[in-house]
Amino acid sequence: MDHQHGRLLLVGGAHGNERTAPWILQCWAAQPGLLASPLPTTACIGNPEAYGANRRYMDRDLNRCFTEALLKDQRCAIREVVRARALVDTYGPRGHDPHDLVLDMHTTTAAMGSSVVVIGERPADLAWAALVHQAVGMPVYLFRINEDHPEECGFLVRRWPCGLVLEVGPVAQGIVDTGTVQKTTACLEGVLAVLGDCLAGKARLPETMAVHHHLGSLDWPRDSAGRQIGCLHPDRPQWDWTPLRPGDPLFLMETGETVPYQGEEAVWPVFCNEASYGEKGIALSLTRRDTITPPAAGLEDLLGLLGSQPQNP
Amino acid sequence: MDHQHGRLLLVGGAHGNERTAPWILQCWAAQPGLLASPLPTTACIGNPEAYGANRRYMDRDLNRCFTEALLKDQRCAIREVVRARALVDTYGPRGHDPHDLVLDMHTTTAAMGSSVVVIGERPADLAWAALVHQAVGMPVYLFRINEDHPEECGFLVRRWPCGLVLEVGPVAQGIVDTGTVQKTTACLEGVLAVLGDCLAGKARLPETMAVHHHLGSLDWPRDSAGRQIGCLHPDRPQWDWTPLRPGDPLFLMETGETVPYQGEEAVWPVFCNEASYGEKGIALSLTRRDTITPPAAGLEDLLGLLGSQPQNP
Repeated sequence: MDHQHGRLLLVGGAHGNERTAPWILQCWAAQPGLLASPLPTTACIGNPEAYGANRRYMDRDLNRCFTEALLKDQRCAIREVVRARALVDTYGPRGHDPHDLVLDMHTTTAAMGSSVVVIGERPADLAWAALVHQAVGMPVYLFRINEDHPEECGFLVRRWPCGLVLEVGPVAQGIVDTGTVQKTTACLEGVLAVLGDCLAGKARLPETMAVHHHLGSLDWPRDSAGRQIGCLHPDRPQWDWTPLRPGDPLFLMETGETVPYQGEEAVWPVFCNEASYGEKGIALSLTRRDTITPPAAGLEDLLGLLGSQPQNP
Repeated sequence: MDHQHGRLLLVGGAHGNERTAPWILQCWAAQPGLLASPLPTTACIGNPEAYGANRRYMDRDLNRCFTEALLKDQRCAIREVVRARALVDTYGPRGHDPHDLVLDMHTTTAAMGSSVVVIGERPADLAWAALVHQAVGMPVYLFRINEDHPEECGFLVRRWPCGLVLEVGPVAQGIVDTGTVQKTTACLEGVLAVLGDCLAGKARLPETMAVHHHLGSLDWPRDSAGRQIGCLHPDRPQWDWTPLRPGDPLFLMETGETVPYQGEEAVWPVFCNEASYGEKGIALSLTRRDTITPPAAGLEDLLGLLGSQPQNP
C-alpha cells in the first residue's frame, strides 16, 4: 500500500477517565460538519477498554507504554502494551493505515487552562507548537524525555514523526463537562486551522515563542509510611504558569507549618495537583520559562510530512 | 461499659477518593487546637482500604452497605460490608465505643457548593440540619430512602440515632484542593458551633427552612449499547439548585439536538455530573423546593442525644 502524505491521527481517551476528547470525537462522528479538517483525519479512542471502564488504565498507563523495548517484547501481555502495539501497527508511520501526524488530547485536574505539550524537542513538533501557540495563545510545555525513568518516557506521540499533546483543565476525571468540551474544541479548531495554513502555504513561524522547559517534579511531603503530610499552600491564588520564587510558600504541612520553595531561582509550576500523578510521586512539575526561536527546519519537516512544499517567506 | 451521652463521630473518606475530609481530620490530629468541638468527638476514616488505594471503594460503595440485611449476613465477605459492620459494632449506638451523632463528610464533582444532606426525614436530623442551615446558610437536600432500590438505601448515617451528610463541590476525585478544604472546614466549624449552642441551651430552630425534596434521578441519554449520547446542556450557566422549568434545555445530544426538560413543573437539580454516579445510571437528581417548619420534637430528640435538656424558648 502506498504511503499517503499528510494524514492526521486524533487520539482521545488515551486515559480512559479523561472523557472530554472522546465526547468531541463522538459528536464529530455524529455531526460530520461539526469540525472541518483540512487533511485526511482519523479519530480513535486511545484506550477503549479503560474508556469503557471509566478508568485511567487497566494495567499500566498507556501513555508510558510506547517504548521500543515494550513494543518489541511480544511476550508482554500488559493490556496497555498490547494496545500500544496495535495502535503503532495500525496507524503508525509504517503501519497498515499509516498516519504522519498525531494529536493526543488529554485533560487534567490541574487548573492549567489549555496548553500544548511537546515531548522531546523534535523540530517539527516545535514548529507545529509554535504555530498553534501563535494562533490560539496556549502556553507551551517542553517535556524532557528521560529514558532512565519509566514515568518520563514511552509517550504515544513519539511513535509518530510529528505529534503534539493537548492538556485542558481543570476538570474532574470521569465526567463530560461542557465548559471543558468547549475549551478543547477551540484548541482542536486552532490545531486544524494551523494545518490548513500549512497546506495553503500561509504558515509563518513566529520569530520567538515563550516555552516552559521541564526541569523536574516535586513529590508531596510524606511521612516514613508514605502518607501525604502536606498540600499545596493555599496562599498562592494560582499555581500553574505563575513564577514560584525562592522563599515563596510551597507546601502547607498537616502541622500548620509552611514549607517555602527552596530553589535558587524562580520556576514556573505546571500540573499542580493532577489527581493521577499522586501514584507517580508527583505533586507538581517545575519548568523554566524561556524564549526560543522556533526552528525553520521544523516547519520544513512539518510541511514535508503534510505533503506540502515550503513557501518562500 | 456505661453509655455516654453526647458523643460525635466524624467520618471522612467513606469514599476513598474523596480526600478533603480525611485531610482535615489528619490536620486536626496533628494540630489539636485547629478545631474546637464542644462535645467528645471521634474522627475516623470511613473506608481506610479504599482511601489507601485512592479509589471510591474496593468491592461496593460503602455508603450503600449499611442495610440491616447486609449487616446481619455474617457470611457476606464484601469488603465494604465487613467494614460497615465493624464501624457499627465499634461506634454504633450499641457498639463497644458508642456514639450518638455522626457527621459523614463527602465531596462531589458537581458544582453544588456546600450543602447538607438529610437521609430520610428523622426529626432529630431535620432539627440539626435546620440549625446548620440557619448558622451557615447551606442548602438542605432531603433524600428519600427507597428500600426497593439498592442505590437508595444502606446509608451510613442511618445506623446512628442522628446523622447528617456534608457534600462540598466541585472538586476532582483524588486530590486535596485547598479551596475545598477551606469550604469543608467552614461547614464543619458551623456544625460544631451549632452543637455547642445546643449544649449551652442557646439553640433555637428557625421558624421555616427551605428544603429540596428528592424526587428521583435522570440517567444520561444512552444508545442501545448503553453508551452515553448526551451531556448536560451548555446553555444553562448553573445547574445545581437553580430551577429547571418545563421546556428548558436539558441534554445536548451527540447529534447536536437539544432535549428539553419534559416534566410538568419546575424542579431543582442537584448532583449534576457527579463522576461516580455514571455507573449508578444517574446524570443528575431532581428535587422539589419547599418550605417546611423544622420539627420542635426533633430539637428535643437532638438535645436528648446530646445529654442536654430542652430549654424554654
